[in-house]
Amino acid sequence: MPTFKPPRPGEVSIPPQPARDAGLIFIGRIRTPWATPADCPKNSRERAEVTATIEVDEPYAQGLKDIHLFSHLIVLYWLHESRRDLIVQAPSHVSAPRGVFALRSPVRPNPIGVSVVELVGVDGHRLTVRHIDCADGTPLIDIKPYLPGTDAVPEARRP
Amino acid sequence: MPTFKPPRPGEVSIPPQPARDAGLIFIGRIRTPWATPADCPKNSRERAEVTATIEVDEPYAQGLKDIHLFSHLIVLYWLHESRRDLIVQAPSHVSAPRGVFALRSPVRPNPIGVSVVELVGVDGHRLTVRHIDCADGTPLIDIKPYLPGTDAVPEARRP
Repeated sequence: MPTFKPPRPGEVSIPPQPARDAGLIFIGRIRTPWATPADCPKNSRERAEVTATIEVDEPYAQGLKDIHLFSHLIVLYWLHESRRDLIVQAPSHVSAPRGVFALRSPVRPNPIGVSVVELVGVDGHRLTVRHIDCADGTPLIDIKPYLPGTDAVPEARRP
Repeated sequence: MPTFKPPRPGEVSIPPQPARDAGLIFIGRIRTPWATPADCPKNSRERAEVTATIEVDEPYAQGLKDIHLFSHLIVLYWLHESRRDLIVQAPSHVSAPRGVFALRSPVRPNPIGVSVVELVGVDGHRLTVRHIDCADGTPLIDIKPYLPGTDAVPEARRP
């Protein structure tokens, strides 16, 4: 168990909760140029020239059949180095502490990352993708096809 | 353990795998008009007039602070009634069996649903949202703010 920094002023930490309501299977891993979470870009679009590799393990790799029909994917991964206790957080880019559900912070009760990626190539059980910002070796949980009719809201409002 | 139908022709089922690589905490539940998965609309945009309620339990409800700053959210939920073994699937709307990662089927190795929803209102620990298509009582895993700069790809290609 790693040691975490104490909460910053205004942050709210909750006691650890047992995480046993459901269980995940790691189905592969993501290979990126970023060795640790601290090395990752804050916004995956910052480094659009960088590609990452998603490696899907057997027997799950059979599930990649026809994935090339889609130009973009939603990738879910487990942020295995993240703490889970900070419910209100004060990251440096916001002016006042904000609830975790109003932040894309990797620190969350269930540390699942979601990235919309461009599919650049498929080679057997390996996908080459663009626009993912996790650390090298991050465990893969799921891949879904991106459906612009329901997933794209270009007019969405943010602060 | 429910009994599932045998695979259809062309479908690939894998033996059950232990799902203990990581553990999830259910942080609330989603209230919808659909009693069972069979009642849910196939496309959440079909029933745009229908709203759903996301109930966030304590102590997680504190994490909703400032969520009203966003017009749209990404909601992650656990499809607790789904089987996890079908890696290639033959749903009726596709002409040939397709890999699970090229489908938005609820049946997947890690049955996590992802919906982009419009935030209609916030009342304490309850969010009213539009465009979610899961069954009533579905366990909530996470809520993230929707960021159009990285999440919206209106030009994405699909078959």
